[in-house]
Amino acid sequence: MGARHGPPGGLMHRLQVGELAPTMRLGPQETRHLHVLRLRPGERVQVFDGRGGEAVAVLSELDAGHALLHLDPAAAAHSRGAEYPQPVTLAIALLKGDKLADVVRAATELGAARIQLLITAHAEARDIGAQKLVRLRRIAGEAARQSERRIVPDVLEPVPLTKLTWEGQLLTAHPGSQERLTDLLTWDAPLTVLSGPEGGLSTAEVEHLTRQGARLITLGPRILRAETAPLALLGAMAATGV
Amino acid sequence: MGARHGPPGGLMHRLQVGELAPTMRLGPQETRHLHVLRLRPGERVQVFDGRGGEAVAVLSELDAGHALLHLDPAAAAHSRGAEYPQPVTLAIALLKGDKLADVVRAATELGAARIQLLITAHAEARDIGAQKLVRLRRIAGEAARQSERRIVPDVLEPVPLTKLTWEGQLLTAHPGSQERLTDLLTWDAPLTVLSGPEGGLSTAEVEHLTRQGARLITLGPRILRAETAPLALLGAMAATGV
Repeated sequence: MGARHGPPGGLMHRLQVGELAPTMRLGPQETRHLHVLRLRPGERVQVFDGRGGEAVAVLSELDAGHALLHLDPAAAAHSRGAEYPQPVTLAIALLKGDKLADVVRAATELGAARIQLLITAHAEARDIGAQKLVRLRRIAGEAARQSERRIVPDVLEPVPLTKLTWEGQLLTAHPGSQERLTDLLTWDAPLTVLSGPEGGLSTAEVEHLTRQGARLITLGPRILRAETAPLALLGAMAATGV
Repeated sequence: MGARHGPPGGLMHRLQVGELAPTMRLGPQETRHLHVLRLRPGERVQVFDGRGGEAVAVLSELDAGHALLHLDPAAAAHSRGAEYPQPVTLAIALLKGDKLADVVRAATELGAARIQLLITAHAEARDIGAQKLVRLRRIAGEAARQSERRIVPDVLEPVPLTKLTWEGQLLTAHPGSQERLTDLLTWDAPLTVLSGPEGGLSTAEVEHLTRQGARLITLGPRILRAETAPLALLGAMAATGV
């Protein structure tokens, strides 16, 4: 596919900033990033705020510890149209080890706008440390930058599945279901796709979800690992081309 | 989803054998596996040959270094119907590091019958060592067992993309394409889905494929890593429920 190791001719480097403003002063960390990219004063970069705002800026000053950027008024706000028609939340059961990091990275590439961690009855992990949550958020930020997303997905602290609330549609992958994701996608409201833990959702959890209007969908008759199922869900959505 | 750490009540352990036969004698390695599973003589196991054959057998002898199994004539050949209507080949460009292992593992779960490695113009890796190929095949075997596939996908030595031949349909993920996988799936012939390297396919490669009848399909407007795109392709197929 089209990931790049550095912008080829004509494409701009991308830089996350705290806030889009006519003049943006960067701290030592972001400045170091500019040095790594070998940018020089006068060059243009694409700046984004991680909340959907995006613009083009000119690097006007750059030294060892700070940099100054000016928004380019001539460049219209750039939109890649890479976001889904409605925000998509991935609700994912806590998984052991580094599996969540892989899921967060791929889910960001595949267009998730939010990642809601879930505590479930059969989960491998019962909780997540503060440090690990910070790491997952950093991974979402890196993946958003690499895949040129305008939005950095929020990674939300775990809630018990039975406390989960959602707006719009909720589709849950569940073995034995017949309904298909592509038949249910309407894009007339926000969407949450939910993927359970290695041990599956409990009967009570499935009942809780369906009572609140969730639909159970198929990922085929094969047994998928808990870290593969969410990517299949989001992959199926991406393959619809939206 | 439904992966399990050990068969709960009513489900049998699964064991790969060289060949399905009325009497099957296991060597030290498979026997060790039976000890790990804590199986006892008299217990039944599901046996499969990795080529689609599957049956139920009774463990009749078990000691430190060997075991004897007898096919259970009362148990009809068991079919989970977990295979696609036609064999699906994943053709995937060589990737660096451990990325291919992750792709092979997930592609096996997601139902690929064959994995054809490709040498491409913009590939990160130009070749694969014999040892690495052996490892990928072992990973395919493990993943097939865990996901209860009846077929262990072949992992085939890399060929240059321009030498790739295929039977039936070939669908290639390609940025900017409009056609959708779900609209093109007919299941009236074998299917190959192709996913390129991090740097994308070259123009010559895309032309070569389309000249031979390949269709270019979308995975949406986002930029996917080379290890995520094949899972999105196969995930989209799995989510059709076949």
